[in-house]
Amino acid sequence: MTDQAPTACILVIGNEILSGRTKDTNSGWIAERLTAMGIRLRETRVIPDDEAVIVSVLNEVRAKYTYIFTSGGIGPTHDDITAECVSKAFGVPWEVDERARAILRSNYQSDADLTPARLRMATLPRGSELIPNPISKAPGFKIGNVYVMAGVPRILQAMFEGIASSLKGGPILLSHSVVSDVAEGKIGDDLAALQKANADVDIGSYPGQRPDGTFRNAIVMRGPDRARLKEVAAAAAALIRKHGGTPTDEPPL
Amino acid sequence: MTDQAPTACILVIGNEILSGRTKDTNSGWIAERLTAMGIRLRETRVIPDDEAVIVSVLNEVRAKYTYIFTSGGIGPTHDDITAECVSKAFGVPWEVDERARAILRSNYQSDADLTPARLRMATLPRGSELIPNPISKAPGFKIGNVYVMAGVPRILQAMFEGIASSLKGGPILLSHSVVSDVAEGKIGDDLAALQKANADVDIGSYPGQRPDGTFRNAIVMRGPDRARLKEVAAAAAALIRKHGGTPTDEPPL
Repeated sequence: MTDQAPTACILVIGNEILSGRTKDTNSGWIAERLTAMGIRLRETRVIPDDEAVIVSVLNEVRAKYTYIFTSGGIGPTHDDITAECVSKAFGVPWEVDERARAILRSNYQSDADLTPARLRMATLPRGSELIPNPISKAPGFKIGNVYVMAGVPRILQAMFEGIASSLKGGPILLSHSVVSDVAEGKIGDDLAALQKANADVDIGSYPGQRPDGTFRNAIVMRGPDRARLKEVAAAAAALIRKHGGTPTDEPPL
Repeated sequence: MTDQAPTACILVIGNEILSGRTKDTNSGWIAERLTAMGIRLRETRVIPDDEAVIVSVLNEVRAKYTYIFTSGGIGPTHDDITAECVSKAFGVPWEVDERARAILRSNYQSDADLTPARLRMATLPRGSELIPNPISKAPGFKIGNVYVMAGVPRILQAMFEGIASSLKGGPILLSHSVVSDVAEGKIGDDLAALQKANADVDIGSYPGQRPDGTFRNAIVMRGPDRARLKEVAAAAAALIRKHGGTPTDEPPL
């Protein structure tokens, strides 16, 4: 099912994610928010703190999707190279932004406290709009369709909430789940037929475990029309009963 | 710091990850295992259950990295399209594998139980090697440099452990962390100079919170030579003391 809704890509930038030292939770969090806004996340990519990679991936994805959200690499240390890379990708100077400098300055007692390292956080691609940071002041920024945010989850979330209302959403994909103990292998053929007969609804099947360790499978119907989801969900429930199962209302995990 | 170590890319395949409904934990888990084996994870990409995307991304990354690990899309339902896509990417037939069929058959009472949906899990790219699945039997597979594994974390982990000893690792990147309460902005300039003077060691700086909510920053030294890491870590600790902090031995979060 494809539609005309806005699309998005998340770039998680940082060696510490690729080494496994830090676990990325930002992409899953943004994914949920985008889904709720009717923006279709098409890709998440985790890439290293490597200038050539960041510049080329940025230019690839910003031409391809409506919105790009990046996470990480905008702090004050030498390994925070995202802003400089965004400048290079857009072919604009990387320079001190006076608005950002004023915000940072208000954090400190004197100009001397605005060390080169701290000033790095106010050095942005020319033409950027600032993204407010209510947690620790140093702003994110937006240039073109690219939204550059911090990697620390609490700060990223606050930054995202600050821009959310400016994003244009599309039709929201609703979902309706039918959970049961029936294994996928049993219902797979009937489910394929159900999908074929209902091309306007996306039907997914997700096996997993309940917190108590017991098996359960969730059939998830997705689409913009609640009435159609209900119809297809009723057919899915009937199919589970046919195979000896009992569909439940429990939320999918 | 680049080296001659083997490289890797993880492809997480599934609409349910991009919608935010399911949170990916597989990539972080594999990342840690690869780091411990001296394999450099260069990229993780989350992509949808979309044939054109899967085929083109697979062909892009398998030419670029030593190892590709995929997660998801090898179950018995219509939305499990990974194996068919891998066949298309490699230009080989997608056909029932008799070894895989025998493994599945042993799970059931009669041939009739081997429904088309279940047989889907034994339908593989021609020329694949099987990856054992000690949890739920249906195997993963390897073709070329691509390792195709299940999305359910417990099964993925079991499959990975089954292939781990066959992967060729490189020099293991060791790490040494120096944690303190000193903010990045204070030490940023000295840290940049420290990195410049020690190009054989990767120095990262990662702010975050302790479980009790207090701020801490971890300076992480990474490299293959433990003695060098210790030297640079001693310099980093001195730098923290210079800025009024106390370096601690607490593990980075």
